Amino acid sequence: MKTTADSKKTEKTAKCADNGMVTPANVFFTNQVAQTIDETVEKIAPSGVFVVVDVNTASFVLPRLQSESKAVAGAKVIMTKAGDMFKNLDTVASIWKQLGDGGCTRRSVVINVGGGVVTDMGAFAAATFKRGVTYINVPTTLLGAVDASVGGKTGVNFNSLKNEVGLFSEAELVIVSTTFFRTLTSQELLSGYAEMLKHGFISSKEMTDRLLAYDVTNYDPDRLLELIRESVAVKSKFVACDRTDLGVRRALNFGHTVAHAFEALALERKSPLSHGYAVAFGMVAALVLSHMKFDFPSDELHRYAAYVSEHYGAFDITCDDYKRLIGFMHHDKKNSTATEISCTLLRDYGDVALNIPVSDTDMTAALDIYRDLLHIG
Amino acid sequence: MKTTADSKKTEKTAKCADNGMVTPANVFFTNQVAQTIDETVEKIAPSGVFVVVDVNTASFVLPRLQSESKAVAGAKVIMTKAGDMFKNLDTVASIWKQLGDGGCTRRSVVINVGGGVVTDMGAFAAATFKRGVTYINVPTTLLGAVDASVGGKTGVNFNSLKNEVGLFSEAELVIVSTTFFRTLTSQELLSGYAEMLKHGFISSKEMTDRLLAYDVTNYDPDRLLELIRESVAVKSKFVACDRTDLGVRRALNFGHTVAHAFEALALERKSPLSHGYAVAFGMVAALVLSHMKFDFPSDELHRYAAYVSEHYGAFDITCDDYKRLIGFMHHDKKNSTATEISCTLLRDYGDVALNIPVSDTDMTAALDIYRDLLHIG
Repeated sequence: MKTTADSKKTEKTAKCADNGMVTPANVFFTNQVAQTIDETVEKIAPSGVFVVVDVNTASFVLPRLQSESKAVAGAKVIMTKAGDMFKNLDTVASIWKQLGDGGCTRRSVVINVGGGVVTDMGAFAAATFKRGVTYINVPTTLLGAVDASVGGKTGVNFNSLKNEVGLFSEAELVIVSTTFFRTLTSQELLSGYAEMLKHGFISSKEMTDRLLAYDVTNYDPDRLLELIRESVAVKSKFVACDRTDLGVRRALNFGHTVAHAFEALALERKSPLSHGYAVAFGMVAALVLSHMKFDFPSDELHRYAAYVSEHYGAFDITCDDYKRLIGFMHHDKKNSTATEISCTLLRDYGDVALNIPVSDTDMTAALDIYRDLLHIG
Repeated sequence: MKTTADSKKTEKTAKCADNGMVTPANVFFTNQVAQTIDETVEKIAPSGVFVVVDVNTASFVLPRLQSESKAVAGAKVIMTKAGDMFKNLDTVASIWKQLGDGGCTRRSVVINVGGGVVTDMGAFAAATFKRGVTYINVPTTLLGAVDASVGGKTGVNFNSLKNEVGLFSEAELVIVSTTFFRTLTSQELLSGYAEMLKHGFISSKEMTDRLLAYDVTNYDPDRLLELIRESVAVKSKFVACDRTDLGVRRALNFGHTVAHAFEALALERKSPLSHGYAVAFGMVAALVLSHMKFDFPSDELHRYAAYVSEHYGAFDITCDDYKRLIGFMHHDKKNSTATEISCTLLRDYGDVALNIPVSDTDMTAALDIYRDLLHIG
């Protein structure tokens, strides 16, 4: 059990050697996806190729890859149902079964083509089949490109808990591209963009300025790819310092304590909130707390809140929801040792304060101000 | 597809820097098990302790550990059914469920107490729960101590295939001890001892001499622990050179091509053969082939065959079984790229020849001589 004093002892700054704009060696940014797949597969010279897709990427992405990539054209296709509710052990077992029946060996290659659900689950299946088959991830959503492409987190939901079963494992290659985004809705683009904004906040004012000035719903494929590359570089900097998610990597949790509570409440209301939108809203609350505790500039907070209000709207809460929301925050899995809510906050752009204890009173005040800023009831 | 010429190209000697009698840093040899567990758990200072056992170790081992170890006494117990047929995904799911319901976090510790089935499966469950919980393995059988303690192989059977799902993962600590062997039968001791004999063959004549002169069924706990340590050092030398089982680690496969075929045939006859016995018999055939192809000393082959005949008896086959046995050998998973049977053989003690193609004719001759040497029909 942790006391407030204990929590204070663990408060620290996310210090991490600045590596400039360096992205991991296994993440490749290109809009020549088919060619990159073929070159990589040729280099690996596998005994067989398998492609894991869900019903969406099977319709919208696979046909084009099959016509453009020799490796994909010759691959056995493993199709899964779409959506987080099928990110479970049954689906993984079905992937394992199809890998086995299709003659997959340790010298085969698995290519996961889809959003975060497909890449997380396909990677887990490959990494645990015959104690590890080489795999390539091809994220097809902005959220997947910017979030699931780095850090080696694989897994599935289990026992009603998100990503309860999984492991840290690195893909042979992650091919990040914007060519598949044409079929995404504005909401899907904005959802992914929220994580990019988060990378801006924990990195620098300049990066945040660039992102807030850019209209992702009307993107240019090559310019957006550049912004994604910059974003991935920020994420990989924090991940590289802390591969198992116990220390400075928590900088990436900025905005997520409140975001997770919003998602949980939305789920109870039976109108789920997308993760990216929840993060966009959660960061408003996190900036409020950052201002309260560390004097994060008030005008910057207001600028961001106006941006969110314009592009994302708001997640509607009343003061009657506070108790439930704060209850969720106490059970956030990233705070498993704390009896107090623990947040990642900002002293300023790029100056991240980790494990900051937040009292229920302070959180209540922050939620009040969140509602004011986003013009809620 | 591999041709004979290809197979020959891959023939090589298991060369591996000799590290003397060095065992891995995470394997601890002691007959003070409870004390070692408590010291280790105290150092880790986990948020909770879980013990995975099967019904056998729950009866024969757990009560003593609970009375002697503070950590085990305070641990939540997760019990599984005993035997290879329960080494499956359902059992792993039940372990995950109990870990989750018991409040296991990433800062908890899982202690797997049992034979190879329990340690392989418990390690897999821990390594994939919340992307990795620290675990300690306490093998309670000689086979587990000498075979499952090194190499980080974890996994479960799936789709009727052994260890089809799993991963390479290292325990925080493996506690190797002979104190739990009192409840083992002579057959169980001899079964484990066969793998120790194998480590002798691939290491040196001196080590093999020591092992053939020792009566494992009438062991002294401390002397046997020393012999196990020597054996584990041999295994770890080969594993350290080759963590993912594609190259020189195949030295550890000595005797196993024929052994796996014997096990498969025994299973078809509905009278399963224990793995260790199969290896003891398989090494007779492997030494015959080693003599045929590399002039391995004939008198040494005869000495070992006499030892096996005296202590292990024989696995009974007739010439009518050859076709089926050779069929199994062609489908051995370690030979997935070969159209010819591929064996690990010996030029001499400690001089291992890998990936040696063996024609069906040569294998038939070897099985004939195996029958002669073990006085079968």
